[in-house]
Amino acid sequence: MKNQLFEKLTNAYEDMVVIRRHLHMHPELSFKEEKTAQYIVDFYTDLGIEVQANVGGNGVVARVKGGKPGKTVALRADFDALPIQDEKDVPYQSTVPGVMHACGHDGHTATLLQLAKAIHELHENLAGEYVFIHQHAEELAPGGAISMIEDGCLDGVDVIFGTHLWSQTDAGTVEYLAGPIMAASDMFEIKVQGAGGHGANPHQTKDAIVIGAQLVTNLQQIVSRRVDPIESAVLSVGSFVAENAFNVIADTAKLRGTVRTFTPEIRDLMETEIKRVVEGTALTNNCTIDIVYRRGYPAVVNHKDETAYVKKIAEDVVGSELVVETPPHMGGEDFAYYLEKVPGTFFFTGAKPDVPYPHHHPKFDFDENAMLTAAKILGAAALEYQE
Amino acid sequence: MKNQLFEKLTNAYEDMVVIRRHLHMHPELSFKEEKTAQYIVDFYTDLGIEVQANVGGNGVVARVKGGKPGKTVALRADFDALPIQDEKDVPYQSTVPGVMHACGHDGHTATLLQLAKAIHELHENLAGEYVFIHQHAEELAPGGAISMIEDGCLDGVDVIFGTHLWSQTDAGTVEYLAGPIMAASDMFEIKVQGAGGHGANPHQTKDAIVIGAQLVTNLQQIVSRRVDPIESAVLSVGSFVAENAFNVIADTAKLRGTVRTFTPEIRDLMETEIKRVVEGTALTNNCTIDIVYRRGYPAVVNHKDETAYVKKIAEDVVGSELVVETPPHMGGEDFAYYLEKVPGTFFFTGAKPDVPYPHHHPKFDFDENAMLTAAKILGAAALEYQE
Amino acid sequence: MKNQLFEKLTNAYEDMVVIRRHLHMHPELSFKEEKTAQYIVDFYTDLGIEVQANVGGNGVVARVKGGKPGKTVALRADFDALPIQDEKDVPYQSTVPGVMHACGHDGHTATLLQLAKAIHELHENLAGEYVFIHQHAEELAPGGAISMIEDGCLDGVDVIFGTHLWSQTDAGTVEYLAGPIMAASDMFEIKVQGAGGHGANPHQTKDAIVIGAQLVTNLQQIVSRRVDPIESAVLSVGSFVAENAFNVIADTAKLRGTVRTFTPEIRDLMETEIKRVVEGTALTNNCTIDIVYRRGYPAVVNHKDETAYVKKIAEDVVGSELVVETPPHMGGEDFAYYLEKVPGTFFFTGAKPDVPYPHHHPKFDFDENAMLTAAKILGAAALEYQE
Amino acid sequence: MKNQLFEKLTNAYEDMVVIRRHLHMHPELSFKEEKTAQYIVDFYTDLGIEVQANVGGNGVVARVKGGKPGKTVALRADFDALPIQDEKDVPYQSTVPGVMHACGHDGHTATLLQLAKAIHELHENLAGEYVFIHQHAEELAPGGAISMIEDGCLDGVDVIFGTHLWSQTDAGTVEYLAGPIMAASDMFEIKVQGAGGHGANPHQTKDAIVIGAQLVTNLQQIVSRRVDPIESAVLSVGSFVAENAFNVIADTAKLRGTVRTFTPEIRDLMETEIKRVVEGTALTNNCTIDIVYRRGYPAVVNHKDETAYVKKIAEDVVGSELVVETPPHMGGEDFAYYLEKVPGTFFFTGAKPDVPYPHHHPKFDFDENAMLTAAKILGAAALEYQE
Repeated sequence: MKNQLFEKLTNAYEDMVVIRRHLHMHPELSFKEEKTAQYIVDFYTDLGIEVQANVGGNGVVARVKGGKPGKTVALRADFDALPIQDEKDVPYQSTVPGVMHACGHDGHTATLLQLAKAIHELHENLAGEYVFIHQHAEELAPGGAISMIEDGCLDGVDVIFGTHLWSQTDAGTVEYLAGPIMAASDMFEIKVQGAGGHGANPHQTKDAIVIGAQLVTNLQQIVSRRVDPIESAVLSVGSFVAENAFNVIADTAKLRGTVRTFTPEIRDLMETEIKRVVEGTALTNNCTIDIVYRRGYPAVVNHKDETAYVKKIAEDVVGSELVVETPPHMGGEDFAYYLEKVPGTFFFTGAKPDVPYPHHHPKFDFDENAMLTAAKILGAAALEYQE
Repeated sequence: MKNQLFEKLTNAYEDMVVIRRHLHMHPELSFKEEKTAQYIVDFYTDLGIEVQANVGGNGVVARVKGGKPGKTVALRADFDALPIQDEKDVPYQSTVPGVMHACGHDGHTATLLQLAKAIHELHENLAGEYVFIHQHAEELAPGGAISMIEDGCLDGVDVIFGTHLWSQTDAGTVEYLAGPIMAASDMFEIKVQGAGGHGANPHQTKDAIVIGAQLVTNLQQIVSRRVDPIESAVLSVGSFVAENAFNVIADTAKLRGTVRTFTPEIRDLMETEIKRVVEGTALTNNCTIDIVYRRGYPAVVNHKDETAYVKKIAEDVVGSELVVETPPHMGGEDFAYYLEKVPGTFFFTGAKPDVPYPHHHPKFDFDENAMLTAAKILGAAALEYQE
Repeated sequence: MKNQLFEKLTNAYEDMVVIRRHLHMHPELSFKEEKTAQYIVDFYTDLGIEVQANVGGNGVVARVKGGKPGKTVALRADFDALPIQDEKDVPYQSTVPGVMHACGHDGHTATLLQLAKAIHELHENLAGEYVFIHQHAEELAPGGAISMIEDGCLDGVDVIFGTHLWSQTDAGTVEYLAGPIMAASDMFEIKVQGAGGHGANPHQTKDAIVIGAQLVTNLQQIVSRRVDPIESAVLSVGSFVAENAFNVIADTAKLRGTVRTFTPEIRDLMETEIKRVVEGTALTNNCTIDIVYRRGYPAVVNHKDETAYVKKIAEDVVGSELVVETPPHMGGEDFAYYLEKVPGTFFFTGAKPDVPYPHHHPKFDFDENAMLTAAKILGAAALEYQE
Repeated sequence: MKNQLFEKLTNAYEDMVVIRRHLHMHPELSFKEEKTAQYIVDFYTDLGIEVQANVGGNGVVARVKGGKPGKTVALRADFDALPIQDEKDVPYQSTVPGVMHACGHDGHTATLLQLAKAIHELHENLAGEYVFIHQHAEELAPGGAISMIEDGCLDGVDVIFGTHLWSQTDAGTVEYLAGPIMAASDMFEIKVQGAGGHGANPHQTKDAIVIGAQLVTNLQQIVSRRVDPIESAVLSVGSFVAENAFNVIADTAKLRGTVRTFTPEIRDLMETEIKRVVEGTALTNNCTIDIVYRRGYPAVVNHKDETAYVKKIAEDVVGSELVVETPPHMGGEDFAYYLEKVPGTFFFTGAKPDVPYPHHHPKFDFDENAMLTAAKILGAAALEYQE
């Protein structure tokens, strides 16, 4: 059965490219992906596949039932784009000024649509059920996953698989990792409210820059002293603004930063300790310091057995020497929410083009052949899960 | 003779007010005071007093010789205005948009002109020579004093006196201080050149905010550890700018600040130590930190004997209980340069109006009666210096 | 063959206990283990096994050749004790005041001796060669491993296995980890040479306490900013001494600390960055700061394939649910040096007694049954490596 | 009358030396000066002068009434010694091991005794009353002054004068200062109670050294940011002790330091701010930090008129060019308490010997001629105060 699937996918590769390039030329921003959603709905409708629109927003969910009872397997692809001006010189360049598929979600969608079509064609001989989750708004917190889950997209699902095409890894290579593979990414905003005055009269002021400097220094000690050295955590203050004339003392300093962690315990610890340092520094300096700590996506934590399972599938598809363990990525993904509900795994499918640019770069592109690799692994993982 | 002078000054008070209000309505910015300079020149020319224009720029110097030989006494008044919109509701409000006499230099000039006229009228019976220095550009570094001195305004001068009308001190009160009465005021600009990057990858960067915070903290220790506690010094970082998205690490941080000192030794020490801390912090963090240290006016250091002399004069004029020692001011004044060349003293003449505003405030004004007080003290100090 | 080995080991368990308790009663300090070495030599000599004394110091190496050609497998046990007073109330309490087997090396030795005996009894039917490395001085840098290796103990060896009985893990459990399992442990000593003086005259001094505080704070930023967050590193200043009267300023401050890392790259980075911070802080403060950085054992880095191999062996012995991946330990072990030369792995054999105490505790003891577990795993790993 | 006094004092100089050397050979520690007190009492008793022993402890007060009514003038000399081994090679070396007059109090006492004798001899022709305060325990807080005042030594006193022989200033020179001439000197002890542990496991600890470093750094900012730069203040941490093995994390850190100020407002500010920084740093680090802040003597604040008065007296005695204004000393003196109750002044009498050593040095000595200078100034100040 896997062989039939792979043959169908190979034949569908050209169509994948067509779909991907169409989507690439018509990107839509997170939470505004209405035409893209409609495109997906139409695709399924045309094939006679059961499809549900407006799942938790612009999300789309299609379901294909096999001819025999079995497990329910979900596969997920996201489809939103980014507020970046496409600077590539290619025929399929974005037609929307300032909006671009700069992270490969067009490829994810094309892959999943053609995979769904192939599975649909084989469905009579398949066991179980296949749920194709087309998720909107991965790029922008709070993300689309959480509302799609609330709206039922995981109902009855036994396992979920997903992948990200990755422009920094050689095409043909697959990267997996059991446990945390992508970080929880939080942000904070801090306002030091001192009391300004003339630079010559510090005693009549509360110097927001000196206080802010203390804060930055103290915050660095959370990672070095309060986090288990075996665990990973990052706290970076990315912005510090107290702009004034040279001869004054600053009234306020505004800081902004990010926190990356891989476990809920360390994440909670970071938030608690940051707030403690803020509170203590305010007391030390007899001033007010306000903090807003905003949680982004949690860490993507791959389940152990499902990761081992997909690793083996991938080894069959690309050869075992091209399936490698990846260190965790510090970036975030709302695939995390699915894995909090059901078992599954998220992996990277290498898609490095001849001249690679980082994700979110105005010249980002990827090797389209990777779509076929991704489709095969996701498809085989779905079908063989029944056995 | 002093009594005759005082009588003439009392009679001239109405004219002082007229002149002051005229100047107040027609303020000119530092280094652009051409009409004001012409007004002063015309005043002396009309009286038949020897006057020299364009001294070191827009400066004006008039000289009155007494009928007998004696000491040469200089008196100085500045005449530039500030880039501030006059918000007072008075008939003599500034007529020039965005320019205003917000520091009382109009009053200084009116005072000195009428005092010169009175001394001129008495000159046959006076000993010595009287030099009236009308200085441009006190408000803006490098100031007018230094170029007027280079152009000869102090040639042959034995002693110099000057005063500042002061809106924060009760009219009728005079404030003196031997030694440093106003601070040297320097400024610095520092650029921390780190290496930016993603907030999740600190090890690939040199975090300019963390480095800048270290720098701010280390700079504070110069005053607390390296300056003799008996001496005064201030170092304030007034501006710290590293504005970025929350999830990056800052490439650069730009700091600006001020240094205030009262002696050349401490001033040199501060500059040396700041540069040392900058250099050491750069080494600690393997980055580049550039600093520009720009010296403003030196401290105004009153000569001991001349200060005691003027103190006594002032006690005769306003009564000894109204002549008080002032703590040094942290502000700057280019009167400092004159006192580096000849003995003399600079004092404050209280001029607080009913509703006082700070100097450089859009609603700044002063009690005009203080002009008469100032004229009497400067005049008596000049005349009696001969005895 | 494995079954025969296991039967022999099971029968030898009582002898293991006897040996272990004998050694426990007669502990010897690192580099002074002469009687223990002689005991080991005698054991082998009595059995007619080829044995070499004084290998790289007090080390002992015995060799058993199988009846067929094959791989050469080394097994290692250490045998030194610690300068700790035994406070256990047991019949086999240490008879040497102030010296104690508080880390289980007595058990390691008893295990390896009985295992060697069993293998010797089976040797005619075995392939390859078996090298029993009894290492002195594991507890004290520079350790015995490095000199035993220089003296040839690994000559011809294809693979090496070793274990540590572990009082903090349940008996019956085995802990493995591919890659770094124990940290490199370095130490540093820093002397801040300021200039002392009276507490009231900071400007005449270089305050070693303020400088030392700066240093401690700056050192914390190495882990938080300069180390890849995916990697582990610890830098702790354990000692800060500048003891003086309250009213002086400290002349010197002496700091001591430890650095723990798992890779040579991060280890080099830590040393480089610490020295950089020291140098920069000295420049900032115009003083001298001396640092001695002394490297201890490198990280114990288990080889991937050999670890997977031993894991499987262990699963056979204790059941797969009791073989668990351990997070890396921050402690050090000079087994590291063997693994720099030949493939192999080091694992922990759970040996928690009813009332567990930490290693190096005066009441430390372990569950002696763990010796049998360890012997079986090491023995099976040795024998099956031929297949 | 002054001339007669000076003549008597000149004749008494040899006796002053005898007394001084006797006391020098028999020094007694603060609060244990019983024989010295008896010596003083005997001196007055032998002369028939009214004397009171055990005033507020070991203090002695003698009173001489003039023949006419007038002001009551107090003169004060202290008489305790220090726990220092005398290392001078002179005939009058201390005979008490480990105890030494290393601060000149022996000279103060000899001066005052001979001055009292001279005044007594002249008393019939004098107006007013003369109170000779021989104070114990100046060197050791809480000092003798406060209890002698409570015990009435200032009752009826109109004015008080005192001097310190000063080994760092040329003999013949007199140093005066209106306002604060000696600092308030306080001490603090801080205990950072963290939580210790292994150097490799910072997350299980609260690192007392890192916390202590933060505290030291934060404390430095009190002087640089919270004290008016025109005012003087010093905060020095003289001792920082957290002594441990290199591979642990410190449980506690003990800090000790001193605070010097010249006004009650700044003194209060320092104590408040130090406690605030301690509290805030504890909160930041979730630990306990205890502080004991112990106030020493307040600042010695000379009264303006009395200082001008004594300055003039001194100019008569040594010539005006040898009477100079001193910057304030950072050392402390419990003469401060007298000046909180009655007007007066405290000055320094230069007493530099050929080879000068600092006060409190084992080889400290002074030029004995200075005693005569001191006696004349104190005596003239007392007598002329009546006029």
